[in-house]
Amino acid sequence: MFEATKVGRSVSKEDFKAQQEELRTHLLEVQRQLAESNTSVVIIVSGVEAAGKGEVVNRLNEWLDTRGVQTFAFWDESDEERERPRYWRFWRTLPPRGSIGILFGGWYLAPIEHRFKDLCNDPELDAELNRIVDYERMLIQDGALIVKFWCHLSEKDQKRRLKELSRDDRSRWKMLPDKSKFSEHYSKFESVAERVIRHTDRGIAPWYLIEAQDRRYRDLTIGKTLLHAIRTRLSESIPTEPPPTLGAVDLPDIPSAQITILDHLDMTQALPREDYRDELLRLQPAVNELAWEAYKQKRTTVVVFEGLDAAGKGGAIRRITSAIDARLYRSISVAAPTDEEKAHHYLWRFWRHIPRAGYMCFYDRSWYGRVLVERVEGFAKDAEWRRAYAEINDFEEQLVESGVILLKFWLQISQDEQLRRFQERESVPYKRYKITEEDWRNRAKWPQYKIAVNEMVARTSTESADWTLVEGDDKPFARIKVLRTLCQGLRAGLEREVCRTGDYVPCGNRRAATEGGS
Amino acid sequence: MFEATKVGRSVSKEDFKAQQEELRTHLLEVQRQLAESNTSVVIIVSGVEAAGKGEVVNRLNEWLDTRGVQTFAFWDESDEERERPRYWRFWRTLPPRGSIGILFGGWYLAPIEHRFKDLCNDPELDAELNRIVDYERMLIQDGALIVKFWCHLSEKDQKRRLKELSRDDRSRWKMLPDKSKFSEHYSKFESVAERVIRHTDRGIAPWYLIEAQDRRYRDLTIGKTLLHAIRTRLSESIPTEPPPTLGAVDLPDIPSAQITILDHLDMTQALPREDYRDELLRLQPAVNELAWEAYKQKRTTVVVFEGLDAAGKGGAIRRITSAIDARLYRSISVAAPTDEEKAHHYLWRFWRHIPRAGYMCFYDRSWYGRVLVERVEGFAKDAEWRRAYAEINDFEEQLVESGVILLKFWLQISQDEQLRRFQERESVPYKRYKITEEDWRNRAKWPQYKIAVNEMVARTSTESADWTLVEGDDKPFARIKVLRTLCQGLRAGLEREVCRTGDYVPCGNRRAATEGGS
Repeated sequence: MFEATKVGRSVSKEDFKAQQEELRTHLLEVQRQLAESNTSVVIIVSGVEAAGKGEVVNRLNEWLDTRGVQTFAFWDESDEERERPRYWRFWRTLPPRGSIGILFGGWYLAPIEHRFKDLCNDPELDAELNRIVDYERMLIQDGALIVKFWCHLSEKDQKRRLKELSRDDRSRWKMLPDKSKFSEHYSKFESVAERVIRHTDRGIAPWYLIEAQDRRYRDLTIGKTLLHAIRTRLSESIPTEPPPTLGAVDLPDIPSAQITILDHLDMTQALPREDYRDELLRLQPAVNELAWEAYKQKRTTVVVFEGLDAAGKGGAIRRITSAIDARLYRSISVAAPTDEEKAHHYLWRFWRHIPRAGYMCFYDRSWYGRVLVERVEGFAKDAEWRRAYAEINDFEEQLVESGVILLKFWLQISQDEQLRRFQERESVPYKRYKITEEDWRNRAKWPQYKIAVNEMVARTSTESADWTLVEGDDKPFARIKVLRTLCQGLRAGLEREVCRTGDYVPCGNRRAATEGGS
Repeated sequence: MFEATKVGRSVSKEDFKAQQEELRTHLLEVQRQLAESNTSVVIIVSGVEAAGKGEVVNRLNEWLDTRGVQTFAFWDESDEERERPRYWRFWRTLPPRGSIGILFGGWYLAPIEHRFKDLCNDPELDAELNRIVDYERMLIQDGALIVKFWCHLSEKDQKRRLKELSRDDRSRWKMLPDKSKFSEHYSKFESVAERVIRHTDRGIAPWYLIEAQDRRYRDLTIGKTLLHAIRTRLSESIPTEPPPTLGAVDLPDIPSAQITILDHLDMTQALPREDYRDELLRLQPAVNELAWEAYKQKRTTVVVFEGLDAAGKGGAIRRITSAIDARLYRSISVAAPTDEEKAHHYLWRFWRHIPRAGYMCFYDRSWYGRVLVERVEGFAKDAEWRRAYAEINDFEEQLVESGVILLKFWLQISQDEQLRRFQERESVPYKRYKITEEDWRNRAKWPQYKIAVNEMVARTSTESADWTLVEGDDKPFARIKVLRTLCQGLRAGLEREVCRTGDYVPCGNRRAATEGGS
């Protein structure tokens, strides 16, 4: 694979000077067009040690208007990062629409290093590379342009360059002691790199292999490639997957053929007032104790509540939170996104709020809005909400892998009971704020919501993140069912053994493997 | 001071029930008004151990619409927090306009505990309390309402409550081993608390002392007080300081009386091309080495560039960054604030971007916009930019105290030279994007800018954060002056000894002292 990067290409000083000015003018021009577009650009700068990745980044910063560029290296994983799923640190560096993010190594750094150090084997590496492919595709479908550069040197050139560097005072500090000596095992490193590139070199996010021996050739080629990539993207529409075919079966227009899992719920279930009190007195202290236990064990809990208007989401959450020490949880009501949130993939705002290890987080509505309200109201395009199931499943899998205890509740309510509660809300002073015109409008879309919920549960009730359907017409019954399920879920979750390094690297020192080469 | 909280006030179950519903209705009502206002509400819940601060917070969360409330405890200081100035963690919890933040202890937790544990003495404590008073005043002037509750118990009641708690399974976990036993030294704790309250009980941000023995009395009183405070704020305008009198002397309308420090700059200074190259070759490697040294020593560097359009800010920054490893710095161009940023104090967005320890940050324009463009263009009200000098000085003092090496450059340019550069920009293709109509408009306000700059330098050139005025008509001269000053500043900064605990607690284990009482 790397033969073509060892052929001795070069650019003379004069040619470089002559071409640089034009390139720069054009780069600034597309950058201004970019700023007004919905596209974000992620540039990944990778390569072998001593290939000059830092020089490349400096050059790009010199050529581009830095007002729209942010650079990120992935050194020094902080404890805030370690206490969250692995990809949290990447989500936080994604550039907003209209701007450019330059990432040193990006999500490729750790897998390459892990495999190089034999912390994982090939199948484990491949699993991680599949995740990367999915991750990049997801960003691209959302409007991102991902440009990946691999700067390469022959073994001889690398040895010479390293020797130069160690003589050169300016680079003295770069030769930090804890750098893994990739260069001493050139062919092994090259073979890992080849596997990684082969698996992640996709039409929608290709790798560009760059011969790095001649600095002027290297920089000019990278600059021109970048220019071309941005230009092409801005002039074409975003590449998408083939248009999704009808994801669900086409239902015959006969009631008995349109039964959903929601019709199987016994909505008459109720709990006598007495039993409710007893159960509450038993379950609330249990939840509090489990919350403290989870805090001690540094296990995060994420609980999602979905349900139609007036299904009792808020009430159920309050019965939990009033039992738990307020320092241990956060409850998040999902409202309209801010402009910073709108400038990113829709999952960005949920990644953003993932709590640190040991804390609980209750979501009153969640990322499922994508396949519920956004689907029903047409806020999301067909292709968008259809691919969201897989995106959500992957998101939740990452949560669970990182040790998060994840519970999801659908609170079901019958049409009659919803009507009764709407009317009650309109008459009780402190409940009046809860009811708006919109609630009445949503109510008219009952059949569409039923189908959306049915599909949501079918597609996202996974091994690691089951939905609990709660019969919500009787509030005491529903609240106790939620509390009981939560207790069971916390207990089971706390018993589960967790490997914080994620799925593909056997437990070990993840941190040691995240320092990047120069 | 606390006698009035030991008189045995109580509320019966029936009275509580009767009043609760009305209170809740009104709280929800003002919360909705609040959401549409420019006011944010910071509720600080403090008090002696076992006074039930957690219960109070749970109650408030029960009464309020949680969609507009966030709760924060200050446990577990993360390394991301430790590596920044102390107040960074408070800035990140401030609620945006229209919403409520409930803080356990808030910025009072650490000072009380530090003093209680004799980590500091009274004068040192007082200095910190003065900072708090300034901090709160700044937030209030920006539209925040700060409501501070101190829940108190008599020694006897506290003993009894702690005994109950230790018997009670639900609270078992709260009795964590590393809790400092405030209760064993009741009177010492009370006397520290009294000092803290006395110094920070201001008309604009009063403390409310609450008798906490009877839970119903405690919660109802807090709820009503909060309701009243928000209502009052929403119906009145924000309390400000007395209207500022003319901050500067009133200048006679005679040229010789209007000389500014800028007129003292010798704008003819220039550097021959040859010398420029030599100096560059000498200084750039030096800067790179110092950057690595700062990284190794975990010392953060913040460099501010201000100057009129075309003064050469970007060029000067690039001469630095092109010499430094791109993984060590970030350069930030200050553009229009996002809506999340607009929903906070204007310094919030600068606090937000403070880098972790060891990194460098270059600001192309900065928080000084408040006293420059916002002043000249009238975007900030008179009172706003006038008080900004003190706010900025305090902000920078906090940076420096925490170990940040802070450098500030004013790049001066003459009117003639600016005109020449404007014209050049219009003729060179890749510079054309840099010149807009606005630049020409700004140019017309030269005299106002001169006065604003003069005052800015006079008021914010402090011992810890001096301005360097750079004669910018000759670019080589200016760039070398910046590089040289930066090298000197880095060297001096790295020699300075730093106590990360801040100014008022002698170096020691700050972390041990940040765990809060229950």
